[in-house]
Amino acid sequence: MTPRSHPQAERLHGLYVILDPGVAGERDLIYMAREAIAGGAHLIQYRDKIREKGEQYAIAGALQALCRENGALFFMNDHVDIALAIEADGVHVGQRDLPVAVVRRIVPEAMLVGASTNNLEEARLAQADGADYVSVGRLFPTGSKEDTRSATLEMLHAVKAAIAVPVCGIGGINESNIAGVIDTGADMAAVISAVVGAEDVREATRRLAGRFS
Amino acid sequence: MTPRSHPQAERLHGLYVILDPGVAGERDLIYMAREAIAGGAHLIQYRDKIREKGEQYAIAGALQALCRENGALFFMNDHVDIALAIEADGVHVGQRDLPVAVVRRIVPEAMLVGASTNNLEEARLAQADGADYVSVGRLFPTGSKEDTRSATLEMLHAVKAAIAVPVCGIGGINESNIAGVIDTGADMAAVISAVVGAEDVREATRRLAGRFS
Repeated sequence: MTPRSHPQAERLHGLYVILDPGVAGERDLIYMAREAIAGGAHLIQYRDKIREKGEQYAIAGALQALCRENGALFFMNDHVDIALAIEADGVHVGQRDLPVAVVRRIVPEAMLVGASTNNLEEARLAQADGADYVSVGRLFPTGSKEDTRSATLEMLHAVKAAIAVPVCGIGGINESNIAGVIDTGADMAAVISAVVGAEDVREATRRLAGRFS
Repeated sequence: MTPRSHPQAERLHGLYVILDPGVAGERDLIYMAREAIAGGAHLIQYRDKIREKGEQYAIAGALQALCRENGALFFMNDHVDIALAIEADGVHVGQRDLPVAVVRRIVPEAMLVGASTNNLEEARLAQADGADYVSVGRLFPTGSKEDTRSATLEMLHAVKAAIAVPVCGIGGINESNIAGVIDTGADMAAVISAVVGAEDVREATRRLAGRFS
């Protein structure tokens, strides 16, 4: 199968901020998204393993509207049904969520699909199954997601060299190590704690997003 | 809005067995579904608050195939995306899941949609929003689902009298109280612990399903 070439593919570039209430705690997600976009985030993802789906649906709808008004792309994590319900720009699935090929089958052609991968084989398979981008991680130690497998900057570089769709580094990325991620040729760098755990979300985002030329 | 009149509506009748690994424990869900259908269950629902969605997808696909081969209807609880992916007969949502009107908008016309309700107002709204049936509960004390509101047999009867779509009693129903549920005029009785907690699933189902004429 030929890799997908999505008309929005060029927007899959820059700082990718993941809003996870498991990390953000009680802080308002809409506020944080607004601050992150003002700080230069190009992509926003909502990942919620806590709230019931009805509440997530309302939050996701507000985040999608905010992103659309401000030129950022919005991705819903895991819940393809919520992505469909709010007509999200995209949906992101992990290796233990619905398979990429299944997601591709039940979402509109225009919806972006991202996939978490850990190695070359998973990245190639995700691309073949119709992913519009793949993330590669966990690159550095992180407290924000349990039970993840580790990956290296070398692996990130190897994936970038091996596949055609954009690639995103993820896992423990912060101000002190983001340069190495960008140096691999990765199109995007996903951050969680470095932004949603920062006192000044906008400033933290600005410092990280500024590393992308 | 006119209540939906689904071509399969007449099949919304009889014993409705909910497979919940939170109650069933380590017991094999496919085995239990097979036994329940052999015992006379007309409808099977898969409700899983434990497993990741990829694993649920595989199990749901197997349950749907089993039900289809054996003339039972299969419903996926909560996860509309899994229901879409496996082309389930139906999907069932609670008050804190995706709203019925939203679900109706993202599933095919032919897919049955069930909704949990607790009172007349919720039942009428669910019907107006396009539900093909409503459940009413929790009728009796139950250990299988936390944080539910109680309802009475009188409320179940009142809902049955007030709406056009089929009605299902739920919550703590067992051999000792199912007759009262059926006496209200309810079309279906949903059981969880009484079947999936029974040593002999087929026999437990047979005794309960036998109460429906």
